[in-house]
Order: sequence, then C-alpha cells, then structure tokens
Amino acid sequence: MSAALDPAETTTDRVRRGGRAGKRAGSSTAFEQPPFRQLRIPFEPTRVVSDDELEAIHLASLRVLREIGIDVLHAEARRIMKEHGADVQEGSERVRFDSDMVLELISHAPSEFTLHARNPAHNVRLGGNNLVFSQVASAPNCSDLDRGRRAGSQSDFRNLVKLGQMHNIIHVTGGYPVEPVDLHPSIRHLECLRDFVLLTDKAFHAYSLGRERNLDGIEICRIGRGVPMEQFVQEPSLLTIINTNSPLKMDIPMMEGIIQMSSHGQVVIVTPFTLAGAMAPVTVAGALVQQNAEALAGIAFAQMVKKGAPVGYGGFTSNVDMKSGAPAFGTPEYMKAQLVGGQLARRYGIPYRTSNVCAANAVDAQAAYESVFSLWGCIQGGGNFIKHAAGWLEGGLTCSYEKTILDIDLLQMVAEFLTPLDVSEDALAIDAIRDVGPGGHFFGTPHTQARYKNAFYAPIISDWRNFETWSESGAPTAVEKANRVWKERLAHYEEPPIDPAIREELDAFMEKRKTEGGAPTDF
Amino acid sequence: MSAALDPAETTTDRVRRGGRAGKRAGSSTAFEQPPFRQLRIPFEPTRVVSDDELEAIHLASLRVLREIGIDVLHAEARRIMKEHGADVQEGSERVRFDSDMVLELISHAPSEFTLHARNPAHNVRLGGNNLVFSQVASAPNCSDLDRGRRAGSQSDFRNLVKLGQMHNIIHVTGGYPVEPVDLHPSIRHLECLRDFVLLTDKAFHAYSLGRERNLDGIEICRIGRGVPMEQFVQEPSLLTIINTNSPLKMDIPMMEGIIQMSSHGQVVIVTPFTLAGAMAPVTVAGALVQQNAEALAGIAFAQMVKKGAPVGYGGFTSNVDMKSGAPAFGTPEYMKAQLVGGQLARRYGIPYRTSNVCAANAVDAQAAYESVFSLWGCIQGGGNFIKHAAGWLEGGLTCSYEKTILDIDLLQMVAEFLTPLDVSEDALAIDAIRDVGPGGHFFGTPHTQARYKNAFYAPIISDWRNFETWSESGAPTAVEKANRVWKERLAHYEEPPIDPAIREELDAFMEKRKTEGGAPTDF
Repeated sequence: MSAALDPAETTTDRVRRGGRAGKRAGSSTAFEQPPFRQLRIPFEPTRVVSDDELEAIHLASLRVLREIGIDVLHAEARRIMKEHGADVQEGSERVRFDSDMVLELISHAPSEFTLHARNPAHNVRLGGNNLVFSQVASAPNCSDLDRGRRAGSQSDFRNLVKLGQMHNIIHVTGGYPVEPVDLHPSIRHLECLRDFVLLTDKAFHAYSLGRERNLDGIEICRIGRGVPMEQFVQEPSLLTIINTNSPLKMDIPMMEGIIQMSSHGQVVIVTPFTLAGAMAPVTVAGALVQQNAEALAGIAFAQMVKKGAPVGYGGFTSNVDMKSGAPAFGTPEYMKAQLVGGQLARRYGIPYRTSNVCAANAVDAQAAYESVFSLWGCIQGGGNFIKHAAGWLEGGLTCSYEKTILDIDLLQMVAEFLTPLDVSEDALAIDAIRDVGPGGHFFGTPHTQARYKNAFYAPIISDWRNFETWSESGAPTAVEKANRVWKERLAHYEEPPIDPAIREELDAFMEKRKTEGGAPTDF
Repeated sequence: MSAALDPAETTTDRVRRGGRAGKRAGSSTAFEQPPFRQLRIPFEPTRVVSDDELEAIHLASLRVLREIGIDVLHAEARRIMKEHGADVQEGSERVRFDSDMVLELISHAPSEFTLHARNPAHNVRLGGNNLVFSQVASAPNCSDLDRGRRAGSQSDFRNLVKLGQMHNIIHVTGGYPVEPVDLHPSIRHLECLRDFVLLTDKAFHAYSLGRERNLDGIEICRIGRGVPMEQFVQEPSLLTIINTNSPLKMDIPMMEGIIQMSSHGQVVIVTPFTLAGAMAPVTVAGALVQQNAEALAGIAFAQMVKKGAPVGYGGFTSNVDMKSGAPAFGTPEYMKAQLVGGQLARRYGIPYRTSNVCAANAVDAQAAYESVFSLWGCIQGGGNFIKHAAGWLEGGLTCSYEKTILDIDLLQMVAEFLTPLDVSEDALAIDAIRDVGPGGHFFGTPHTQARYKNAFYAPIISDWRNFETWSESGAPTAVEKANRVWKERLAHYEEPPIDPAIREELDAFMEKRKTEGGAPTDF
C-alpha cells in the first residue's frame, strides 16, 4: 500500500508536512494547500428511495434489457454478446439481454481497485467509500476574464493541465480539460497524451475514438508508467468514459473502447447521458431506469471482454428546460438522480461516478449554487469518482480558468468537511473553558495559541474582510479573486520529474506514430 | 390538523392548485410558485460523529454545567434555579447545575409542536422531521443594487416583510429582516410587531429586550391571532431567540425573555453564539461542548419556568478568521458543527434550529457557495427551524434584497430535492421507453407531453439560455436577475385580509401603548 493510500491525513497536517509533500507531489511550494491524500466519505450515503423502490428501478431496467434491448452497431461486439448468451438475431443490430446473464456478468466487476499514476504517490482508490476528484473534461471552449470565451488551443490545454497537476485536491487530470482545436485530429490525441505524461504525474484519461487512438493511449500510458505490458494489464492506470448514445444505442467507437480497454485491464466507466425529457423519459425515475439499463449493458459487455475488468457505474441523469430543450445541471432533479444512482451502484458493488456540473454562463452566484448542489449530490450520493470536479461551466461547453480555481476551493472545503472531527479529550477543551470562564475570551489562551494556525480551513476565494475594508480595496467579487489566483499559481508551475529513459521511449513512440500519420480521420 | 399540516404536496401540484392556494395564502398570483406547505426531510440525517463521540460531547457539557457553571445576572432567575436544585451561592452570580436535574428538566420539553400563525393555513410544525424556513432577522443594514448598502428604515423593513409574506417557501417571517433605525427604540417594537400582524399572516418573532417589550409582543401576537389568553398560552404562536452571552453567561433581558415567553407557553429557542476561537474554544468539538452546555442551561431554565414549555435547541457554532477575528460562515467547520448540533438536539428530542448564513459582502459566487454549504448542513443535519433562511449577507450585518430572492430560489430547490421521487409504475416509464425505442427522442411522446409542464422545478434565477443568446441579452449575472425579480414581485404585493375587529383591537392597543411612551429606553 503506497503512501497515498494511508489513512486520511488531516489538513491541519499541511504546514508540518506541506513543504516535503508538496515537492514530492511535484506541485509548487509557492502557495499553501492541503497535501495530496486519498479522500474517504466517512458517513453513510443518503438514501432517497427505499429498498423496495430501488428494487423496482432495478427490475424495470432488467425488463428494458430483456424485452426492448439495445442497438449495438459493432458487429464484433454483437458476436461477443451472442457468444455469452445474449439474444442477437442475424441481420439485426438489436441485442436483448437475459437478466440472470447480466447479473452474473456484473458480479465479476471489482468493487474496489487502485488507479495507478506515473507517480505512485498519486495512485488513488476507486470504490468503497473512497472519493476521487477528476478535472473537467471535453469542453470545446475555454474562458477567462482577460481573454473572454474562445475555442480551446494547445496552449490553453497545457495551462489547464498544469493547474490540475499543481493542485493536490485534483487527483486525476481526466480527459482534455479543453479540446485543443488548433491540433489536427489525426495527431491531437498523441500530443495530448504525451502532455498528460510530461506535464502531470497523476492518472489520466484517453478518449474512446477508435481502435488506433485507444491503442495509442494504452501504449503511451504504459510508457509513462515505465512498466512492461504484462504488469500494465494487471494495474489499472488509464481510464475512459463510455457515454452510451441514449436511448439504448451503442456505437462502434464505444464498443471498440470497451474491447481495447477492458482486454488490457484498463478502466471503463459507462455513463449513459440520460437527459430526462430528451434522450430519456421525462420522469426522473424513468430516466434512471434507462440509465441503469444502459450502464448495466455496458458493464456486462466489459465483463464479457474480460472477467474482472475494472469498471465504473456512471450516472449523468439530469433534466432539460422544457421550454428550450437546454440541459440543466445542479438542479433538484439532478441531485435526486445522483443519490439514486449511488444507491444503484452500491447495490451492484461497482464504483460510482458522478459529476460537479452547472449550466451557468458566468462564474456568478448561479455557477456556485449549481456546483455546490452538485457536490452535495456527489457526496451524499456516495460518489467515488467525481468527474468534471474543477473547471466546468456552461453545461460543459466551456472550461473556465476562474471556475477551475473556484472549484478547487469548493473541493478543498468538501475534503475538510469530510475530515473526521477530533473529539479527543484535548479537543473537548473542558480545561480551556474552565480557564477562560464565564464572560472571558478565547483568543489569547494557550489552548487557542497552540492551535490557531491550522485550526480551520483557509479558503482561496472567500473574502472575509468587513464591508468597509472590502469596499476600500475595490469591492472585488469572487470571480475577480479567482482571476488573480490562477495567474499567480500558473506562474509557479514546475514540471514533475521524469526518468530520462521514459522520456526517450515516449519521444521515440511519438516520432514513429507521427511519421505513420497518427490516427485515420475523415478529412 | 389544519390543511397546512397535511402530507406534503408535490410541487407539480402548483399549476393545478396554484391560483386558489395562492389567494388563500394571501400571496400574489402574478408569479408562479409552489404552494405553501409543511416541508419534511424524508431521509435520515447524516451522523458525523459516532454515538460514543456524541456521548463524550454530551458528558463534557454536563461537566461544564456542574463544575464550572454559568453566570446568571438576573436575581429572580437565580432564585428559580436554586428552587429547582441548582447550586447558587449567596452573593455570587455563578450557578452550577446537577446533571440529573438538567436531564430531568429537559425531558419535559416537547419534541414536536405547532407554531400557530394568524392564518391557520400558515401554521407550521417544529420538531420531528419537519422543516421550517424563517426569513433573515436582525440585520442593521440592508442593500440592493440600485441604492447600495445603507442603515435599515421602516420602509425597507416593510418591503422585506412583504417579500417574506408573498413567498410561500418562507414559512415564518422571523425577527426584523432589517432594523428600522428611523424608528425610536421606545416604540420601534410596537411599530414592527403591528406590521408583522398586518403585512403578513405568517408566524413571527419578538425580541427579548426587556419585560415591557416581551409583554407587548405577547399581547400583539394574541390580538393578531384573535384568541383569548387562556387559549393563546396553550398554542405556541410567537417565538424568541435567546443568544447566550458566550462563554457561559446569561444576561437580564435573556432571562426575562425566557420567564415571560415560557410562562405564556410561547416558543424560546436557545442559541449560543459560540464562535470557535473567540467566544468558544478554537476546536470545533470544544465549541460544541460549550454550545451544548449553554443551550441545555437555557432550555432547562425554560422548563423550570413552565414544565412542557415549547423550546428549540439552537446551534450557531462557527469559526473565525484567525488572522482578523472576523466570523466565517458556511465553512466546513460550520457544516460539521451544524451536523453535530443536529445529533445533539435529536439526542434530547428537542426541535433543532440552525441557519442559512454566509460571510460574503456581495451576492456573488461566494455568497452562493457559503449559503448552499450552509443549507447542506441544515438539511443533512436534520434542521427543523432554519433561521436566516432568506436574505442574509455579510455575516448578518446586511439584509440584501437580491440575496432574498436568490435564497428563495435556493430554498425552493431544496424543497423540491426533499420531495419524494415518484417511482410508480407510470413514472418508471417502461412503455414510454419501449415506444421511443433505441435512437429515438422523448420530446414529442405522449408520456412527455402529459407531464412536461410540471415535470421539473422552474428556477427563478438560473439562466439556462445558451451562451450566445445570453450574451446577446447583455450577459446578465444572477444578481442582476434577482434585482429585476424583487422589484417585479414587490409591485404585486397584496396585504392579507384581516378581521376588522382584530384590526380595531390592535389599533387601540397601539394607541394606548404609544400614549404610555412605549418601552423605557436609556436615551
């Protein structure tokens, strides 16, 4: 068990350990932050539906798989499914699944596993009561207060990955925080994956965009880890998200992704994108039935590919604005779906992925309340892998530099909330209360003096100055503070060290694949 | 049992019932909102400390009461305490409490009771799993985007009470949302209490600021309810908050408040203001020990005054910025204290009061995240009475018109989150999923068409338009939207109907008390 998997350290350890831990983690020492640590949710998740109601959703989704089935566009995948007992008719893409078969298959999915990073101190555990935060992924645009909103570039991609690397609360950098559209699609994945190896030493994600890209992702990740393939397939290190084409459809790249990733022992998180009223029934319960059916089908398929392949159960059910069709996030319906999703994932004993999302167009009060409502759903829902944990804005169409910093602060606050309360004799402080006595003050007491430096979480954004002082300093709002912070922090980025042999192997692979023209494209 | 206490209606009832319920509730029909209803928290509160740890806090607070004691400045209160077996020495203000005596006394506190409003449809239940939202109270300043921050006036007081009355999610108007400093203190309470009777028909609060004001509050509330005193003392209708002078001190107006309110069967919520590191130990556990000691002392005293007097257990433990001493709210430490406070209140079977608070100076992302973190603590902590639920800004120094609207939206979202999920056969939607089939769309289906109007909560503030449309409309932030909303809504305020005989009795009482000069003041 590595250092990162030790029992959670309290954030009050940060000053004592900060310097060394910070350096070891490859992060800057220019700012104070809690150390990288494996978070855990110490309390029971909240149950919003009863066991009977949960069973009704479960049984309904099995009926959907059995009676309606799923259209699987990938011929080889259909062949594998048929081989495992699914009902596949010649000349049809429709696949129907026997309930016992589905349940038998998903029973092989591991309930907990380690996701390995290039730096073992950045390994994380998925499943159980473990909590992992992953940076925002897949935004086509990025924005900041200085330059406004724009399509993503390699420069923005790199900046955002750097911010992910240097902040300990971000455990996994995730997919592309912004799509670098200035890179040609044939080599974009190569450039981005190489950056994931060089600019960070945390675990990362590869998109399932066809066989070549999958295999490139697996090879680059293996090179980064510096281990032979026999070892790599035993150690989940790379993850991919499979968003089904809701309703009830799975396309060729998805199936290809599961085949490549699962056969190599890498992590597949199946996340149906079931927007109630659009790609799923307008009732949250109905959308959850569909989410569950699609997730179970994908997870069962991964187990057909390789029994025991590491998988995640992804929930992304939300509602739409019924006037415009626009997706909504961080809503009460989203929260309820998050909680039921967690109940379902725990019923199957599979790590649960959910997300920190919002629909706001600006880093204003809306962005903050939608995000904290989402985080409330993540934590009380018993989420294990929180996707889009930092940076998401505008329904995922934009990664905001300021929102990244705001979210880092929110995540750090959540981590502190989850840190068990010290109720030792000393913390109960009867002697301090006696010493101060009625009408006294605790500021100057030895009990306070010994603890005040690390007694409380020190926020990044929150401005606690009184109104007068705050006004005199120009009445800065939270987003303005965040703008200043990301520039200061980025200036202190340091690339994490890497073994020169790994660097050389990576360069050689890049050279070879670029010479070959990268991955095929339609254009 | 009145209509308001019926099992919770779902918000999807709003269109079907809206008009009539709206009129009955005296609120405007110019905007759509969920009906006034008794909220309940349908799931188990979150336990952040174990039963053993909770017991350690409990026992430590009993030790504080037994060994250290509390300074009680009110001679008559000390006499009552001595009579009930407390250790009171002649010539000393210090009172020490035997643990068995405290536990015996608090066992008489009712675990649940109805708070009666002038309009019985606005009665609410306190305790159990009932949830009640009360408007912000006691801000010296108010603010809005148009006029900035300023000391409160009667005009602002009235505007804010009107906003409280017309929004169904605000169950109790609470104390003065802003202090009307343009009214002389001798008659300020008379003016405000009369406004509470006339401008709203919801339950309200009276400050414990001396015998005369307490008795005026009780009499005005009784007149408003239109019931004889024999009935009034059996029906809790008025509430007061007793904030102890932490650490371990209770002053004369507090004790006077408990004596008057409890002897008249009205509600006393004892809320120590235990800021960790200032008026309480720097450790959250220590601050909770002190909170619990002070709360139990106040509640025990109320039971000495009248066995079975309705009381609330108030928690207000938070931390301070150790650099400046400024109080912080909505922090991880605040949330943990909220949750433990709920565990303690439930241990004693006493309704739990906690608050929706923030330290932000502007209605920005900080205000929103601190508030939603607070609400998270309120709900997962099993709060029964949520004080300062709408309008609080700047650590309580300001009531913001825009924050009032923002909070109303947040509270409505919380209420929707708490509405049980419909998992009926119909909601599970297997037939709709079958009809749409793989690759289809749910927008136009009969299942969607029959439900889309009320399927989801319709937010007040959230802007779900896409970036382009939003930008073209001037890129309004949440606070700007809230600014527009409060003005529109206030323009539609209608005074709730009142029995002319009650109005006459109220006018006569006002006339008499003003002629007498109101309450004595020092200036």
